[in-house]
Amino acid sequence: MQSLDHLNPFTDLALEATAAARGDAKTEVPGVIMEEKKYEHATVSWVRVVDPVGEQLIGKPMGNYITIEAPQLRRRNRELQEQVGKVLVEQLDQLLDLKENDTVLVVGLGNWNATPDALGPRVTGKLLVTRHLRDYVPADVAGGLRAVAAIAPGVLGTTGIETAEVIHGIVERIKPAAVICIDALAARSVERIGTTIQIADTGIQPGGGIGNRRQALNKETLGVPVIAIGVPTVVHATTIVQDAFEAMASSFAETKPFFQLFRSPESRRKLLSDVLSPTVGELVVTPKEIDELTEDLAKLIAGSLNAVLHTSVTAQDLLRYIN
Amino acid sequence: MQSLDHLNPFTDLALEATAAARGDAKTEVPGVIMEEKKYEHATVSWVRVVDPVGEQLIGKPMGNYITIEAPQLRRRNRELQEQVGKVLVEQLDQLLDLKENDTVLVVGLGNWNATPDALGPRVTGKLLVTRHLRDYVPADVAGGLRAVAAIAPGVLGTTGIETAEVIHGIVERIKPAAVICIDALAARSVERIGTTIQIADTGIQPGGGIGNRRQALNKETLGVPVIAIGVPTVVHATTIVQDAFEAMASSFAETKPFFQLFRSPESRRKLLSDVLSPTVGELVVTPKEIDELTEDLAKLIAGSLNAVLHTSVTAQDLLRYIN
Amino acid sequence: MQSLDHLNPFTDLALEATAAARGDAKTEVPGVIMEEKKYEHATVSWVRVVDPVGEQLIGKPMGNYITIEAPQLRRRNRELQEQVGKVLVEQLDQLLDLKENDTVLVVGLGNWNATPDALGPRVTGKLLVTRHLRDYVPADVAGGLRAVAAIAPGVLGTTGIETAEVIHGIVERIKPAAVICIDALAARSVERIGTTIQIADTGIQPGGGIGNRRQALNKETLGVPVIAIGVPTVVHATTIVQDAFEAMASSFAETKPFFQLFRSPESRRKLLSDVLSPTVGELVVTPKEIDELTEDLAKLIAGSLNAVLHTSVTAQDLLRYIN
Amino acid sequence: MQSLDHLNPFTDLALEATAAARGDAKTEVPGVIMEEKKYEHATVSWVRVVDPVGEQLIGKPMGNYITIEAPQLRRRNRELQEQVGKVLVEQLDQLLDLKENDTVLVVGLGNWNATPDALGPRVTGKLLVTRHLRDYVPADVAGGLRAVAAIAPGVLGTTGIETAEVIHGIVERIKPAAVICIDALAARSVERIGTTIQIADTGIQPGGGIGNRRQALNKETLGVPVIAIGVPTVVHATTIVQDAFEAMASSFAETKPFFQLFRSPESRRKLLSDVLSPTVGELVVTPKEIDELTEDLAKLIAGSLNAVLHTSVTAQDLLRYIN
Repeated sequence: MQSLDHLNPFTDLALEATAAARGDAKTEVPGVIMEEKKYEHATVSWVRVVDPVGEQLIGKPMGNYITIEAPQLRRRNRELQEQVGKVLVEQLDQLLDLKENDTVLVVGLGNWNATPDALGPRVTGKLLVTRHLRDYVPADVAGGLRAVAAIAPGVLGTTGIETAEVIHGIVERIKPAAVICIDALAARSVERIGTTIQIADTGIQPGGGIGNRRQALNKETLGVPVIAIGVPTVVHATTIVQDAFEAMASSFAETKPFFQLFRSPESRRKLLSDVLSPTVGELVVTPKEIDELTEDLAKLIAGSLNAVLHTSVTAQDLLRYIN
Repeated sequence: MQSLDHLNPFTDLALEATAAARGDAKTEVPGVIMEEKKYEHATVSWVRVVDPVGEQLIGKPMGNYITIEAPQLRRRNRELQEQVGKVLVEQLDQLLDLKENDTVLVVGLGNWNATPDALGPRVTGKLLVTRHLRDYVPADVAGGLRAVAAIAPGVLGTTGIETAEVIHGIVERIKPAAVICIDALAARSVERIGTTIQIADTGIQPGGGIGNRRQALNKETLGVPVIAIGVPTVVHATTIVQDAFEAMASSFAETKPFFQLFRSPESRRKLLSDVLSPTVGELVVTPKEIDELTEDLAKLIAGSLNAVLHTSVTAQDLLRYIN
Repeated sequence: MQSLDHLNPFTDLALEATAAARGDAKTEVPGVIMEEKKYEHATVSWVRVVDPVGEQLIGKPMGNYITIEAPQLRRRNRELQEQVGKVLVEQLDQLLDLKENDTVLVVGLGNWNATPDALGPRVTGKLLVTRHLRDYVPADVAGGLRAVAAIAPGVLGTTGIETAEVIHGIVERIKPAAVICIDALAARSVERIGTTIQIADTGIQPGGGIGNRRQALNKETLGVPVIAIGVPTVVHATTIVQDAFEAMASSFAETKPFFQLFRSPESRRKLLSDVLSPTVGELVVTPKEIDELTEDLAKLIAGSLNAVLHTSVTAQDLLRYIN
Repeated sequence: MQSLDHLNPFTDLALEATAAARGDAKTEVPGVIMEEKKYEHATVSWVRVVDPVGEQLIGKPMGNYITIEAPQLRRRNRELQEQVGKVLVEQLDQLLDLKENDTVLVVGLGNWNATPDALGPRVTGKLLVTRHLRDYVPADVAGGLRAVAAIAPGVLGTTGIETAEVIHGIVERIKPAAVICIDALAARSVERIGTTIQIADTGIQPGGGIGNRRQALNKETLGVPVIAIGVPTVVHATTIVQDAFEAMASSFAETKPFFQLFRSPESRRKLLSDVLSPTVGELVVTPKEIDELTEDLAKLIAGSLNAVLHTSVTAQDLLRYIN
């Protein structure tokens, strides 16, 4: 049933996966607890997957998923970015429990040379990296700077090495108190591209957002908490087609005999599978302004991480100290 | 009827526009003459739009459009690239009628920083540029090097200046015998991305491939022949959806009452227009390997232009002298 | 006398050229008026070359040269950058006399791909470019945004086209009220790299900083005021050697018979010319952190230009709205 | 004696260090064996440091250093590059003793974003990386492709992680039969920039070329042979000054009383130390065309490694399959 699975609209966002599982009737999903809070410029949702039933139903590992939605980020307003950055700082502060002398490793997943996949490397390139300075920096300055290391290990296709093979060795050697992974995600809705930030304490499946499953980076495999921060930069092309079909199906469901035949999601997927060219499955959809959106979000995340990790950087100025 | 027009699958390729006008019945299109020749690794088609009727029917200006199709380019084989390069050289040689002392201006349209739009600037960055060397180079060497200038003027969104405003002034000053414009195109079919090259003697509408119409660069406006070389790098997201609908429509046309209601293209477009979210119209679809494909094609085109423009560079080695 | 001229330490800074002409005795230079003002974080000097005698003596065209020196910029402190940016805004405001509806063209000279030469293109890449938006933006917003266009025309070596050939044509078409050129400079002192900003109302000799003289961009050739903003990013290698010789000469001048023989600058230059390998004349010296310094200064200049050109951007936030 | 040591002209090339130890009299250096062979377009020298005395005298660890000198590489001729590539392939073939199923790890040391330091990352970016394909590729194709992995781990200043900390972990996991490190070097002579290739079986001191000593990457620390391939891209500024002094000293040594006082190298170093500004010690000298030279050499090395590592790539075509 590969082809049907494949057509199940893919999303890296737990929030979207939960919404899909709830369906139009918006029923509760067993094993999944949702909460939501509105801020002035953003909505923050918490999805808690609390048992294996929930895990199965939404297809995401047990743990906490925090989603910050700020549709106005598309407008590229600096002040709004700072507001959303503060919300991100607040959420990360609650997830991370760091001591003054802890080392933190930030991993920028993805590929520098492919814009929609470059979010992770761009964030690591903008961070205030300090681990190597600790021995040289005066104590009063260093007091406000935690030891931060950052690496963008490249992607399997260009290195021939699994990301996990690179990161495990580094974690063994530098012994961070936490690992923070940054990755570009695939969403179900094009409106989310560049406007939604997901934070998860379940770690990451490198390459997961683009369709492959690699060795996991999580607390189980690395032995320390692994926080994943992701932003959707693409939607799969099949998702776009399927959305159009679903819209058609729902608007004609009662009146047209044809769609009565295709009333069940399964039958609709079968239909799609029959009519979609196999090439489409390989394609991603991305807005024309993806480069600017990725750059904005990379700055926002790097600035927020600086404020979370270095006590001498305040959330007040979080876009000021990025490279 | 903006929305329906918008849903008319957009293509920059005269070959695809002609095929669409011919329809399933493959009737002749008045005012448009087609020819085709098979090479070992490529098919070359000539579309000649000979009168205003043809112009209207396929939506492309009168003139000659040569399309080189080589689906195997996707495999990124160096030898095949050289074979296709030789075909491109042959076609360009027939279109251009250059004297030894002529100057040629190559214009790389598009935006360096957006991969699917970077083909033009990448080609100019790889060319053997020689116009400034003529006074310094010994005559026996210079004999084999024509005066070539190349500029990538940027895009309106980042310069605030229309491409035509930049190019007209340069043409007035350096007085080239011909202008060759390189641009990324939008196709109707995803299979064409990175595998099809269109050469047109009708010049170019900068930004045309992405939806805008700016001041033209053509023989009429610049006073010298303007050859446009383009390669599809994107497909509009609406095209993907529409193709799926059409496939469904044609496979069920006879048996399902629903699709009998939607038998005419117009009624199908209306349906699509109702179910597609407006955001989709802004989206482009591009394969994940777009960066490598663009780089390959930029080398192929730069290498071919070197061989066409400089008699001392032979088609034999056309990938050898690119930067 | 090419070789001796060549050894005359080269500088693009009028301030350094004047200091050299004044010599150790710090005599006045006829035809050159100097003033200086200390700010908290910067020193601003005005060099006014008022007649052909001064022009001859310091080797710079008649006009005004404003130099902002802020040695602390090397420390890469954001707050200091903003302070220096405000000084730059103040000086530019005095030089430029713009009306609300004026168009301004910013030209980023130099080569994107060579770090020490990339200052100009980096500044244009970070500017708030608006000329193309005027017809779409609501009047109340546009009121605070002047029409700004920006182009980085590339260098002769990669385009085969003189910068002046590109810019003259654009100026004819877009008719700016002023042209602002940004360029990387060569200084005499390595301490100035990344810490000194020169503003001149005499325009620019593209490539002048690297040794070539091309067609000028100035009020005479373009018909509108041309302001040049430059920052030293390199020192010629011969300058370094000569400085060491001079230091040696001055410390031993009275006591060692050898240096009595080489007491005159001319005899010292002759000596240097004899011992320096010709390759050294081609070399430039640049600090290892040149990439970061260039990026910092590009942001500082872009931010300052945004504040000068757009009334809705205040000097308060000048690093906030850069790309 | 830090300052004097510092003034001892620094070189990463064993060939230059040996020449310096031999002095003008060209005496043998105990513990160091030299051989030389002339090819049509290149000279190959072997420096074998065979005991601790030799190690001490030239300041390089015991082992083999092969230097390929091809001054014509500056002319950027493709054919010559291929000839030099074949010499490099020949030398690497002799040093490496690989079995068909061996994995090889290529490490690109240095910093993508600083041109003179970008050689290593550029080489890894151009390699035919295959380790991840072995399970998917048909046996007959895979037969000619050895498992090659490649990583550019970044520099301490931007990651906060020592290169050795990254590489040791990867070597433990992927268990290569050999590690090949690529790095930009500092030479004593500017003529060597971009024209000399050093191959050493002694491994590497990351950052060594720019002045720091980090944890070594060599057979002792990694447990497998480590081949270092380096190309000079910079000369320290102090070297340039010192060379000029030495030239002056030797031309006047007999006739001028001043230089009789400074006859010994130590006294000349003391003099230099007195007159050189401390900033100069931080500076590097690099030719203006460093970007093109680095790109050419990166292609030459990547092409040669492809031919050495993959039996299906022949030295005949070594510039053909690079990315």
